[in-house]
Amino acid sequence: MSVCVVTGAASGIGAAVAKTLRGQGIEVIGIDRRESELCSDLGNPDGRRVAVQEARRRSGDCIDHVVCCAGLGPSEDPFLVASVNYFGAIEILDGLLPALSRGCGSSAVVIGSNEASMWSWQDNTMPLSFLEEGESRVHDRLRRVSHGEVSRLSYASSKQALTVAIRRRVEAWAAHGVRINVVAPGAVQTPMLEASEADPRYSEAVKKFVAPLGRRAQPQEIASVVAFLLGEKASFIHGSVIFVDGGIDARFRPDRF
Amino acid sequence: MSVCVVTGAASGIGAAVAKTLRGQGIEVIGIDRRESELCSDLGNPDGRRVAVQEARRRSGDCIDHVVCCAGLGPSEDPFLVASVNYFGAIEILDGLLPALSRGCGSSAVVIGSNEASMWSWQDNTMPLSFLEEGESRVHDRLRRVSHGEVSRLSYASSKQALTVAIRRRVEAWAAHGVRINVVAPGAVQTPMLEASEADPRYSEAVKKFVAPLGRRAQPQEIASVVAFLLGEKASFIHGSVIFVDGGIDARFRPDRF
Repeated sequence: MSVCVVTGAASGIGAAVAKTLRGQGIEVIGIDRRESELCSDLGNPDGRRVAVQEARRRSGDCIDHVVCCAGLGPSEDPFLVASVNYFGAIEILDGLLPALSRGCGSSAVVIGSNEASMWSWQDNTMPLSFLEEGESRVHDRLRRVSHGEVSRLSYASSKQALTVAIRRRVEAWAAHGVRINVVAPGAVQTPMLEASEADPRYSEAVKKFVAPLGRRAQPQEIASVVAFLLGEKASFIHGSVIFVDGGIDARFRPDRF
Repeated sequence: MSVCVVTGAASGIGAAVAKTLRGQGIEVIGIDRRESELCSDLGNPDGRRVAVQEARRRSGDCIDHVVCCAGLGPSEDPFLVASVNYFGAIEILDGLLPALSRGCGSSAVVIGSNEASMWSWQDNTMPLSFLEEGESRVHDRLRRVSHGEVSRLSYASSKQALTVAIRRRVEAWAAHGVRINVVAPGAVQTPMLEASEADPRYSEAVKKFVAPLGRRAQPQEIASVVAFLLGEKASFIHGSVIFVDGGIDARFRPDRF
């Protein structure tokens, strides 16, 4: 039986991914703050370290797939958003790579966001700070942001940095025999989106954020793409960013991709 | 039974797509210059018109899926490359849209190339000519290119223009209830790649073009992604460019996506 670690497995996209994979006969080790096989807080370094140790121990140090879904939206504390969305994903991935390299047809998928493409790499220096300066320096920088958009800046920057960090790993991960890809959703009907919708700062923007397909995604529509990317039919997809956003990215930037 | 039109169905990726879809019980109407249900040359306007008419007639003007695989590589005549790769795809797609809008769970996939992202939209004016000036002006421009790279310029520009043209259609096609996406392969073991490998102008570059995954794709590995995108598990993917290139795009431009 294949083994897959899924972070953020208690709700939203993570819950849908866990359910889909279980339906395919895959053993899921869910990680979340609550209601999971492995309860741990990915918002701090200790929680991440424990999660990696425990996942390796419970799997016998042999894992076939990892899916990083744990993430916080722009209505949450911007420091926690940065910590969970970027460091909570990267430290899990890098920590589980040795176990993945012993798996079968090993692959990983990371949930990014179509917000990651809204700023270009050149126009925003925050993502580089995630990649090169580390968690406390990112928090220092966020503390110095005076405008009201700090939460959205933290969210978009963390997701952009995460996407670039995955793409930078294509050579190293291929050398370990592990494929890794990013799924970039748009508006998905999850508790995270509902929290943003209830937040007066974002409520209007969320309501206007309607994809060309004319609706929001259900979590299952993201999970089905994740499951495909993990499997052997996606055997040549590596380092790719797959937008699953009903056409929003294409609408906003048709000539960049 | 679903009906799918596949261009370029006689060889390479198109043949693998046709075989995969037939294996799923889908009725395939293949279009190619030879050995197909519908023999027609997409390199000229008459051939494209006849192909659209015939495909509409044979399907009873109700088509569920279209896959545009017909394409020529940089070792071919640059004028024909431009005509087949861009106009041969766009005119088939737009011509079949009325029939697609009457299909079930309608969707289309177009084969682009990871070469389409090698030049930025700003650095190369050729793709805009495809989109806005039409076939004879594109040929005029190619005639004025003096350097030896005209074939590669024609190839990359046609694929970039095609990708942008698809992304510009997300609103219109969604209004017709039809999803459309682009698959961007890298090096795939096809007759097209073998022709480039045998061409002294490209032989060296083709041999060096090794993906992080350490091998070339088999046509089947592109076809399996096409089949996924056509189906209901990809119901929220629209206007996306899916790189299926073993990590080459991520290697060359990790911070753009």
